[in-house]
Amino acid sequence: MEFTNFFNPHSVAIVGSMSSGKLGAILAGQILEGGYQGILSAVNPKSEGVLGIPGYPSTSAIPAVPDLALIVSPASTVASVLDECGRSGIHSALIITSGFSEVGNHEGEEEIKEVAHKHGIRFIGPNCAGIANARFSFFPTLELRTSAGGIGFITQSGALGGVVLGRAQQRGLGISKFISYGNGSDLSQVDFLNYLADDEDTKVIALYIESVANGRAFMNALAECSRRKPVLVIKAGRTTAGTRATASHTGSMAGSDAVYDAAIRSSGAIRVRTVDGLLDICEGFTQISHLDGKKIIIVTNSGGPGVLTADHAEDIGLSVAEPGTDLQAQLRTFLPGHCSLKNPIDLTVEGTEENYRNTLKSALKFYDAAVAINVGTPYLDNLSLARGVVDGARSSGKPILACFAPEQLMTESINYMQQAGIACYPNGEQAVSVLAEIARYEGYRTRRFEKKIIQSTAVSRTLPGNGKMLEPEAMTWLKENGIPVPDFLVAANEKEAELACEKIGYPTVMKVVSPDILHKSDVGGVIVGIRDEESARQAFKAIQKSATGKDFRGVVIYPMVKDAQEILLGLSTDPQFGPVVAFGLGGIYTEIWRDIVLRVAPVEPEEALEMIHEIRAINLLKGARGKLPFDLENLAKTLSTFSHLPFIYPQICEVDLNPVFLRPEGLVVGDVRVITR
Amino acid sequence: MEFTNFFNPHSVAIVGSMSSGKLGAILAGQILEGGYQGILSAVNPKSEGVLGIPGYPSTSAIPAVPDLALIVSPASTVASVLDECGRSGIHSALIITSGFSEVGNHEGEEEIKEVAHKHGIRFIGPNCAGIANARFSFFPTLELRTSAGGIGFITQSGALGGVVLGRAQQRGLGISKFISYGNGSDLSQVDFLNYLADDEDTKVIALYIESVANGRAFMNALAECSRRKPVLVIKAGRTTAGTRATASHTGSMAGSDAVYDAAIRSSGAIRVRTVDGLLDICEGFTQISHLDGKKIIIVTNSGGPGVLTADHAEDIGLSVAEPGTDLQAQLRTFLPGHCSLKNPIDLTVEGTEENYRNTLKSALKFYDAAVAINVGTPYLDNLSLARGVVDGARSSGKPILACFAPEQLMTESINYMQQAGIACYPNGEQAVSVLAEIARYEGYRTRRFEKKIIQSTAVSRTLPGNGKMLEPEAMTWLKENGIPVPDFLVAANEKEAELACEKIGYPTVMKVVSPDILHKSDVGGVIVGIRDEESARQAFKAIQKSATGKDFRGVVIYPMVKDAQEILLGLSTDPQFGPVVAFGLGGIYTEIWRDIVLRVAPVEPEEALEMIHEIRAINLLKGARGKLPFDLENLAKTLSTFSHLPFIYPQICEVDLNPVFLRPEGLVVGDVRVITR
Repeated sequence: MEFTNFFNPHSVAIVGSMSSGKLGAILAGQILEGGYQGILSAVNPKSEGVLGIPGYPSTSAIPAVPDLALIVSPASTVASVLDECGRSGIHSALIITSGFSEVGNHEGEEEIKEVAHKHGIRFIGPNCAGIANARFSFFPTLELRTSAGGIGFITQSGALGGVVLGRAQQRGLGISKFISYGNGSDLSQVDFLNYLADDEDTKVIALYIESVANGRAFMNALAECSRRKPVLVIKAGRTTAGTRATASHTGSMAGSDAVYDAAIRSSGAIRVRTVDGLLDICEGFTQISHLDGKKIIIVTNSGGPGVLTADHAEDIGLSVAEPGTDLQAQLRTFLPGHCSLKNPIDLTVEGTEENYRNTLKSALKFYDAAVAINVGTPYLDNLSLARGVVDGARSSGKPILACFAPEQLMTESINYMQQAGIACYPNGEQAVSVLAEIARYEGYRTRRFEKKIIQSTAVSRTLPGNGKMLEPEAMTWLKENGIPVPDFLVAANEKEAELACEKIGYPTVMKVVSPDILHKSDVGGVIVGIRDEESARQAFKAIQKSATGKDFRGVVIYPMVKDAQEILLGLSTDPQFGPVVAFGLGGIYTEIWRDIVLRVAPVEPEEALEMIHEIRAINLLKGARGKLPFDLENLAKTLSTFSHLPFIYPQICEVDLNPVFLRPEGLVVGDVRVITR
Repeated sequence: MEFTNFFNPHSVAIVGSMSSGKLGAILAGQILEGGYQGILSAVNPKSEGVLGIPGYPSTSAIPAVPDLALIVSPASTVASVLDECGRSGIHSALIITSGFSEVGNHEGEEEIKEVAHKHGIRFIGPNCAGIANARFSFFPTLELRTSAGGIGFITQSGALGGVVLGRAQQRGLGISKFISYGNGSDLSQVDFLNYLADDEDTKVIALYIESVANGRAFMNALAECSRRKPVLVIKAGRTTAGTRATASHTGSMAGSDAVYDAAIRSSGAIRVRTVDGLLDICEGFTQISHLDGKKIIIVTNSGGPGVLTADHAEDIGLSVAEPGTDLQAQLRTFLPGHCSLKNPIDLTVEGTEENYRNTLKSALKFYDAAVAINVGTPYLDNLSLARGVVDGARSSGKPILACFAPEQLMTESINYMQQAGIACYPNGEQAVSVLAEIARYEGYRTRRFEKKIIQSTAVSRTLPGNGKMLEPEAMTWLKENGIPVPDFLVAANEKEAELACEKIGYPTVMKVVSPDILHKSDVGGVIVGIRDEESARQAFKAIQKSATGKDFRGVVIYPMVKDAQEILLGLSTDPQFGPVVAFGLGGIYTEIWRDIVLRVAPVEPEEALEMIHEIRAINLLKGARGKLPFDLENLAKTLSTFSHLPFIYPQICEVDLNPVFLRPEGLVVGDVRVITR
């Protein structure tokens, strides 16, 4: 997809009323004030022009075909405007007008899609706040104009876009491209991600979404883009109230937030929750191109802020190790005796330009990055300390983030450092949060990468019995597909049950087989700990009795498993992302701890192993308190095999293996439930 | 303690050099610029004055005795300056000078304490950044001057104080009293909390600490103060790196952060982690005096920010319930059809002053508080929307917080609302975080309140065997003190063991008794599931063998407990807070989940019950998955009884009851370990 017409057009038609206070006139004013140098035309039934822009009755009346149509005319007119655009040879449109699917007008939105498709027009919108390309001085948007910079910003919500642009402007952060896409009925996140991945002006991408149409296409675009530059995502609609609000204002049904979360993280993107968090990290990425590791040094002239920074850094997984004896000895040669040489290094209120410069230079031979803190008072010279920090960064070649506070005393210093490539934050906690995200992103870039299957391409098989499987059939099906199940035998009468128990080996477990009974335990259809022939016969009788009046097909008999760790493997189907695989603690603890990890399926063994290590109780599986550890590599292989099932058997809607018995010598499925479409 | 001399002095002596650039001269400049109207004198060996302030060679040379001495002279002179102050009749001193215990000069600090004590002088500092009373135009501080307002701010770190004052000034928040107390060697947090609790200008107290000298005195002051006005606490030094840094720059050893956390929360104070979080909540408390509950309505003119706000509100436990049919019907009478009437109520970009006013007025009949969001663009009239919000607050009498963004377009609106008593935040997430804290504080104020015992006042008893107890003795001791233990019998030989097992009733558990064996299981000294006489004899022999070469005193025999929930009860001793009581999941899950709740001991049954409900796995105890629930009231009584033990037996350093077997019919201790001082 080619975006030149949208972001670098030679000529633009604004379609809508140019009367004072109307959107057309406001938009024309914004574009002119923004300094656009191309040809502008105004189009409306009255041929009304504005601010020196000539007016025409239709796009076809404009002497030369414009590259882009900006449409702000009423919703009811948009289809015919597009039709007219198409007939006059325009192939790109930005539709700001609202009043479509977001207010229930789905027909109207379908109509404009059809008209556009007929003429080969690609469009952004409707119901959006416009776009911007600051380097081209082109601001066809209702929002604030920001300076040019390294942040590419894509947003589903126009208003949220305005908030982000406003904060960016206040913080002196520049935007390479701004894209508000509203209902996204033609061009969507996937197109914009691909565009900004290639855009040289964009160093980091910020994305705000409430929902996506095709989860897997989105994931793949996100993953490919993330390998080239960092992508930050705010996904709104996490909670019941949030989802309700999202659904009502975009007309789209949002999928489960947990699945979005898994999709975003496993695609290497960074999920953030707040606008300021987003901009903090964007600022870091525009200034820092590379980070080797997680070991940081904090250099401060004041204790309290240094301590708060160290606390937060350790909380979020950075290393704040004490300097070794080598470094300490080196520091002692030039720092006064009252300075603390632990980490944070406290230069005290007497810290000088020289102290910052030399300390940073020496320390960064041993650390991956530094946070330089200066808390000033009205009577201290802060600019010289900023110089020390900048020199430290230059001579070490390593990333430094700065926190110079209070801000109102530091304007000059902050500007000086920002221009020298040092991101500045009002406090150290923010700075270390940014470093942690950058370090995490570096980790992602070097990983193996698997595109997610978008559609089932393998030979698609039908489930046995077309999906209506009794437990023994389901167990056999699992076994044939490489999922370990225990030995089992079925028995139709007392005698067979007794023999089967003997063959399996006491103690055994006996379970009812009946298409009418879903919750076997609840009706007394499961008996455990059967120890001899007599008990086996009694058990059969009891189970048969429990199935009175039901279609009783006999019993299935398993060996009894003891002292296993109960885990669960699950498959479900998400409306946006399709098959999803789950791993977690099984049995009663599933509900108490909700210690479950999700991924969009399928997962290869490497990603499966990563999932397993993400549960909070991972130490239980690694052999806690002197117990034997489990074979997690083997578990990962099984989890991977399991996650491919929906692509071989597309009828699958849900599969629950809970519990699965995990033992040092291997795992076996304890129970299985399959739900088909 | 009377603070008039410190905050409202009639005359002040500044002791220190008045040469240009020296602290004395800087401080004199600050005080004059701040507009102080009282009498100022400068004191130094040269009798040097500054800026029209007369100079004297000593405090006794000043014609009338000053109320307060401000000391910035070198550390080595402070003791003699104090002595001179005392002899000239000064009883209050603020010592800004550093170079005492924070750099290892403990003798110097002891000396000034002694001199002050001899003369009855009370002092703030040393090593502090000064104090301020804006309403009295008195700013004896090196930090920024802020306007008067409702926030009382006490800080251990001077630099952190400067950061907070700077941010407060930027945000337009006023400070009633600023107190930087540095090493706090005389007056400390406890004194300042008591002072600000009574101070009419102070509506909310913000406190930054790194350590406290007497944990229990601090807790009691915090708890009493919190019942009168909200207290927010930043406690630094949470992590290894943070604690290391704290210790090195204040010279004091910090206690366990988990204990500080329990102490702060259970005293009704609000713990915050960041400076901006602190000021967000302070601003809320200065504007909102009362909040009835947690049910909030969000009124917005833009979808995205509304969704993010709703998401965050639900995350942190507020209710964002949908409007009922009554309210919906009422709203329909005046809101246009395109508005969404769920919660958030989305007025869309066309929302008017009338819409905000009427919606807030109607909705606040059904909700406890509102968040009003307006995302503006350069061409909208935002001030009229602010008027709508203010009217809504006035006519409803309920709290409203506002988020008008982007900030640079909203300066006028924000000022207007702040003056009308509405706190404004740059985003909705901050606003709902503030409401959640205010709601939590309202909950605290209405609770019962128990002062913590500061010293063991009860008759203090000696532990049996002076604390050297074998397991049977420890069990007997617990039983005598009201902690339920199982029936048990001791046996010295095979025959006794067999008879004891029979008497206890099979199946039984047998454990070795020996002062030499600490980890009984590790040496094979515990045998469970003994089912008959033969096994009993075998078990005794095996255990006796396991104790070969040790001082073997026989075995103790218990009935075997099955299907119990394993919990733990613990006592330990914190360097700052003394006895601490713990409750949590026992056995293997202690380490995996770390699901443990702490309190400073003792706890009464009400607080014990609260502790029990704070574990994450509380549903396990309430009868998960159809299991019987446990008697938690009874458990709380036992926990309370247990928590009093260190006050009856002051020798106790640690007691671990792990596991304790919890069953629907009651609980019994499974194992006990006592460590004495």
